[in-house]
Amino acid sequence: MQHIFSTGKTLLFVVLIYLISSGVLIGQSQRDKLNFIIIFADDLGYGDLGVYGHPTIRTPNLDRMAMEGQKWTNFYVGASVCTPSRAALLTGRLPVRSGMASNHSRVLFPDSHNGIPASEITLAEQLKQVGYATACIGKWHLGHNPQYLPTNNGFDYYYGIPYSNDMDNVVLAQGGMGYMDFWKSEDRKNTESFNVPLMRNTEIIERPANQHTITGRYTDEAIRFIKENEQEPFFLYLAHSLPHVPLFASEKFEGKSPRGIYGDVVEEIDEGIGRILTTLKETGLDENTIVIFTSDNGPWLIMNEEGGSAGLLREGKGSTWEGGMREPCIFWSPGNISPGIVTELGTTMDLFVTFSNLAGVEVPADRVMDGMDLSPVLLEGESGPRETVFFYRGTDLFAVRMGDFKAHFITQGGYNPQREVHDTPLLYNLAIDPSEKYDVSGQHPDIIEKIREVIRSHEANLVRGPDQLKDRG
Amino acid sequence: MQHIFSTGKTLLFVVLIYLISSGVLIGQSQRDKLNFIIIFADDLGYGDLGVYGHPTIRTPNLDRMAMEGQKWTNFYVGASVCTPSRAALLTGRLPVRSGMASNHSRVLFPDSHNGIPASEITLAEQLKQVGYATACIGKWHLGHNPQYLPTNNGFDYYYGIPYSNDMDNVVLAQGGMGYMDFWKSEDRKNTESFNVPLMRNTEIIERPANQHTITGRYTDEAIRFIKENEQEPFFLYLAHSLPHVPLFASEKFEGKSPRGIYGDVVEEIDEGIGRILTTLKETGLDENTIVIFTSDNGPWLIMNEEGGSAGLLREGKGSTWEGGMREPCIFWSPGNISPGIVTELGTTMDLFVTFSNLAGVEVPADRVMDGMDLSPVLLEGESGPRETVFFYRGTDLFAVRMGDFKAHFITQGGYNPQREVHDTPLLYNLAIDPSEKYDVSGQHPDIIEKIREVIRSHEANLVRGPDQLKDRG
Repeated sequence: MQHIFSTGKTLLFVVLIYLISSGVLIGQSQRDKLNFIIIFADDLGYGDLGVYGHPTIRTPNLDRMAMEGQKWTNFYVGASVCTPSRAALLTGRLPVRSGMASNHSRVLFPDSHNGIPASEITLAEQLKQVGYATACIGKWHLGHNPQYLPTNNGFDYYYGIPYSNDMDNVVLAQGGMGYMDFWKSEDRKNTESFNVPLMRNTEIIERPANQHTITGRYTDEAIRFIKENEQEPFFLYLAHSLPHVPLFASEKFEGKSPRGIYGDVVEEIDEGIGRILTTLKETGLDENTIVIFTSDNGPWLIMNEEGGSAGLLREGKGSTWEGGMREPCIFWSPGNISPGIVTELGTTMDLFVTFSNLAGVEVPADRVMDGMDLSPVLLEGESGPRETVFFYRGTDLFAVRMGDFKAHFITQGGYNPQREVHDTPLLYNLAIDPSEKYDVSGQHPDIIEKIREVIRSHEANLVRGPDQLKDRG
Repeated sequence: MQHIFSTGKTLLFVVLIYLISSGVLIGQSQRDKLNFIIIFADDLGYGDLGVYGHPTIRTPNLDRMAMEGQKWTNFYVGASVCTPSRAALLTGRLPVRSGMASNHSRVLFPDSHNGIPASEITLAEQLKQVGYATACIGKWHLGHNPQYLPTNNGFDYYYGIPYSNDMDNVVLAQGGMGYMDFWKSEDRKNTESFNVPLMRNTEIIERPANQHTITGRYTDEAIRFIKENEQEPFFLYLAHSLPHVPLFASEKFEGKSPRGIYGDVVEEIDEGIGRILTTLKETGLDENTIVIFTSDNGPWLIMNEEGGSAGLLREGKGSTWEGGMREPCIFWSPGNISPGIVTELGTTMDLFVTFSNLAGVEVPADRVMDGMDLSPVLLEGESGPRETVFFYRGTDLFAVRMGDFKAHFITQGGYNPQREVHDTPLLYNLAIDPSEKYDVSGQHPDIIEKIREVIRSHEANLVRGPDQLKDRG
């Protein structure tokens, strides 16, 4: 009896621990917290989804997600290239503040020394404070040395390629071939040309990563994480490595899209999103999960047919024209987010503040935040708080949007070395002229003056973080 | 009694005639015929609707129509300017065959002598053969002299402005102002600058037409016609005069769209489409009516902010680049047309053949028809019959699309006098490269050869109709 009783107590203890850890006994309030899923594509352009006007890329799941949710048409990223854009998303701050933007190196490379500073607070660290399970699946690109990895920055779990899928290029490393020649060669189609690691937490588990299956595997990992965390609030950051070149799809998708390999890749990402949304519906988690889909920057136009399309927007990746920094953005949460097309201004930095507020965790008060709370737009259908967007290239402020107007003080093509400084800025009314074709600076000196005031005020509280990207080799 | 009896017989006869003419006694088979509504915008670009990717033009009714119906993404018009495009739509034939295309005058003007030849058979004339009620509401532009008007070309009823809303320009007629200067002047905002007539059947009922209310009045007329013909099959051709410049909206819409006056106008058209679809639903006619929305040609880009957007397509109105001739196109018929995005090839000329077949009237066998039957795509979800599209400018064949490939033998900007002839045509894969940026002629000499064969075959059966546009003054 004694023995049985003791076993019974032990069993009771084990069951209690299980129930607490699985969230059952933490109470309704904890499970009532919204889950957050950020799905981030890489180099996808404003015009690359069916619902954003592409004629031949088939994205039925994203199209449906947009119909059931909010399709934002004035949503921006924090920078027009990868590393600073991702830093902005995860910190809620302009990358010039964290030092994750640089005029010496546009992004981090495999020989970069540094990464996201420990002093920065990521959205994952925020949400962990209130008990969220957190996972980063996919591309990280905020530092690949151990102290910079996701698991050291608020994520319980990491699975992915820690930087861009075109890095560790073994063909170019041999010398004798020019950069653009490589992208015309058959070598670009061989996943072994890119000796990129696939990591689980802090370990390399595959090298080179088999990129043909990477999109499907990221989706599988995302679904596994969702199912494992049905009972507790979670934050999933799913950052696809694609459609950044090189482009790889699985057998099921390769050669299937009328848009060619770029379409194959986007359609495979879309299928994965369909699987994720189905998982949420099947588990009932759709009722308390917000999913957002967007991309890190505009299309890489110098890659020609293997780069995406910014639709009616001007230029692409690397530039501060609209095509570089305005992205498709879909928020989805049936029953919570009222469907519609939203023309309010938003940025990826706003997700930090919005999700912190929704989760009940205070936004850091010891630093300047650039994010704003979009929840009135998402949940109440009200107008948004954002009036300005800053367009930095490296650490230089090139342009500012205020309301419908955008003033360009410096312009430069994404991959064009020629920079043009405008004493009187070019001014476009983006509501009327989204393609930035008709300069109206002559008609609106008052607006230019107001934008200059906005810049003075912005610069007055701007502390530039030490450059984290420049140390390499 | 004799007198009364006689009156009774006469009354019976009158009633019988009424019942027959109204379709009541023709039997269920007649009422089972599908109704057809073609809504044709003017100078609306491929990128100008929400569901085709415009960020700030709000078209909730067209967006919903696209979700409930088929959104076609490879749908073309028969010419990149007004008169020949409309001739193609209504005859099912390339305008070079009917003589409604010319190298001497791109369209008909108020001083033009001629119009659509009597020998041409319009879609209205076709459908009248099997008892359809027919109405043309809006812009005609196939001849304004009496013999060319809609009521002499198969339409029971006409209400509209018989040519473009920018014609009969009284300011330019006074002299002293250049054409483009006019379009920058305040005079363009005055409806009295354009002394265009509004006609009912063959009578002018208002001159100048009040263009502020024209969109709403066209919609009202369309709804009245639908309601009057609930009991018999009908064909309604609603050809809006707008958003061709000059742009006018009613008080309810003017100044309301973030896109400016162009957006106001498109949003008013969209609201009218919502009213029409609601009328169809309320009367139950939605079950046996096919509605199609498209436009006559691409955006008039030289009008700057007051012209539309071709989205990711190249160039606009007047050109044989995609932006000039590929249009938004939505087919809607709940229960008949299965919803989806359709990438099959289609043209406005196909409507003649498709609707003739669906109505059970034979397509004319005594002439070459360019239209094809799209009903397998619309009703069965099958692949489409169309493999080629011809791009004429005036009477010159500039380009040919065959499958995904388009070969340009001659290129010229829409309003640029400079013409470039290509001995080896420029070749674009439009499925991969809808923006016509990457010439792949060097890689596909076989496809170019096949396209040349298609042209030889096309020209072998091409009888050019006498030029109907050149006689003026």
